[in-house]
Amino acid sequence: MSSDQPHVAVFGPGLMGASLLMALRKYSPGTKLSAWARRDEAVQEVMRRGLVDSVSTDATEVVRGADTVVLCVPVDRMEEVASAIAPQTGADTLVTDVGSTKEKLVSGLDKIFAAQRNFVGSHPMCGSEESGLGAAQADLYAGALCVVCPTQTTRTDLVGRAEDFWKSVGARVAQLSPAEHDAAAAVASHVPHVASAALVELVAREPANFRNLCATGFRDTTRIAGGSPELWSAILAENAEKTSAALAKLEKILADYRQAITNGDRTNIERLLASAAENREKIFPRT
Amino acid sequence: MSSDQPHVAVFGPGLMGASLLMALRKYSPGTKLSAWARRDEAVQEVMRRGLVDSVSTDATEVVRGADTVVLCVPVDRMEEVASAIAPQTGADTLVTDVGSTKEKLVSGLDKIFAAQRNFVGSHPMCGSEESGLGAAQADLYAGALCVVCPTQTTRTDLVGRAEDFWKSVGARVAQLSPAEHDAAAAVASHVPHVASAALVELVAREPANFRNLCATGFRDTTRIAGGSPELWSAILAENAEKTSAALAKLEKILADYRQAITNGDRTNIERLLASAAENREKIFPRT
Repeated sequence: MSSDQPHVAVFGPGLMGASLLMALRKYSPGTKLSAWARRDEAVQEVMRRGLVDSVSTDATEVVRGADTVVLCVPVDRMEEVASAIAPQTGADTLVTDVGSTKEKLVSGLDKIFAAQRNFVGSHPMCGSEESGLGAAQADLYAGALCVVCPTQTTRTDLVGRAEDFWKSVGARVAQLSPAEHDAAAAVASHVPHVASAALVELVAREPANFRNLCATGFRDTTRIAGGSPELWSAILAENAEKTSAALAKLEKILADYRQAITNGDRTNIERLLASAAENREKIFPRT
Repeated sequence: MSSDQPHVAVFGPGLMGASLLMALRKYSPGTKLSAWARRDEAVQEVMRRGLVDSVSTDATEVVRGADTVVLCVPVDRMEEVASAIAPQTGADTLVTDVGSTKEKLVSGLDKIFAAQRNFVGSHPMCGSEESGLGAAQADLYAGALCVVCPTQTTRTDLVGRAEDFWKSVGARVAQLSPAEHDAAAAVASHVPHVASAALVELVAREPANFRNLCATGFRDTTRIAGGSPELWSAILAENAEKTSAALAKLEKILADYRQAITNGDRTNIERLLASAAENREKIFPRT
């Protein structure tokens, strides 16, 4: 049996997966949607919310007939899920993912899908400190950057299909190698997460009344520290080498600030802060 | 001539000062408002916006008849302005300030107002990465915490008046000694500012395309790094000792994270992140 109806199978209906289903329903209403969840409770919840045409804990059933498969499980569960579905996918099936790390992950998944050569890694740079289906929203991907990470063996046609797929839910796309992606994600996302958590820890170690002084600046600076410890510990462990190297660089920059402050070198402090304010405006131009 | 009409004189119509004038106009409409600005352009702008009953570059004129004087100039200009007005204030005049640091500042201002013993230090914990009159808003103080910092020589009646004053513009109040305030502000505000700027610097040192990966998490974490380098270098220099000590603690916490990540010790990483997420929820309970 063949059908012209597009069919996307999403594995893992958490924040990323459920938002993707909602976005596909909204922006590609003719697409058949199937979903896989590990737990029966999640299957029930996906059904109750009417996010899909079919949902199951049976990976084989979910992947059947899908032309696009998106792995939205935590990074440390990707290989297990991929292994279960690889034999059910053909060379025409595009398999991609939303993992926050890429080098180890893409290397592992490329091996699992070696027979079909149908995998291309993706990382849509969106999310929130919330996680889970309850936080999902149809416009999570709208305007976000999705980094597509081909390797030297990735089929060019698949890269184009992956890019078109992410554009269909409103994302912008860019290409980086998995190694470049991880180095960039370390400084743009993984180290900021650690720094945010470390700032909370700094306050938590002081007398309890000190925390009364945490105002809107502290709230925003530490928002991401509210993210799931389970998801983030997996991300940091996967990208350990590049995150450690970037953390060491951050410690060095902080030590430079500390030196200037200890010396009462106001000119140097102001120079450092002015550089940061200028660079931030390059990253996020005022509109 | 005496008058029963309350009269508040605000020195420095920047973000804090102009917002205070707007708040007083909104919440205490019967109050006479006068303002002092250093530059003629600022005087014109305050007049043009109709924020006050009178505005001038002449400090003596502005302070005349005021029962409450609020110093809203940058921390490194407080003493100069205070010296100019002290002889014009009496024991019945409440003089307070909005400076982000307290220990050195209160010590200096207590000396300047020693004859009248009419100064009590304050720090309303609000603001924004914006600065200047253009960013002012009547509700900047609403719901914010204002720390009032009496010393052993501060008159009790003045502390009560200062607290009532801040409550009148919507702030909550708490008392800390100047030294406690500075230690708390170092971890809750000054070090987060440095960390935020350092995270921008970390990305700025990498290849230009890395910054494309800076998404909403990075944007929020580094929002405060957009603040005025001039104002913030003065704050960090004023609170140098406590900020340096807190920065050293932060570097130690980051090194602990780095060690756990380098070791691939996922259990420990998750434990550290869970502690941060829990502590953040204590600081900012979900509503």
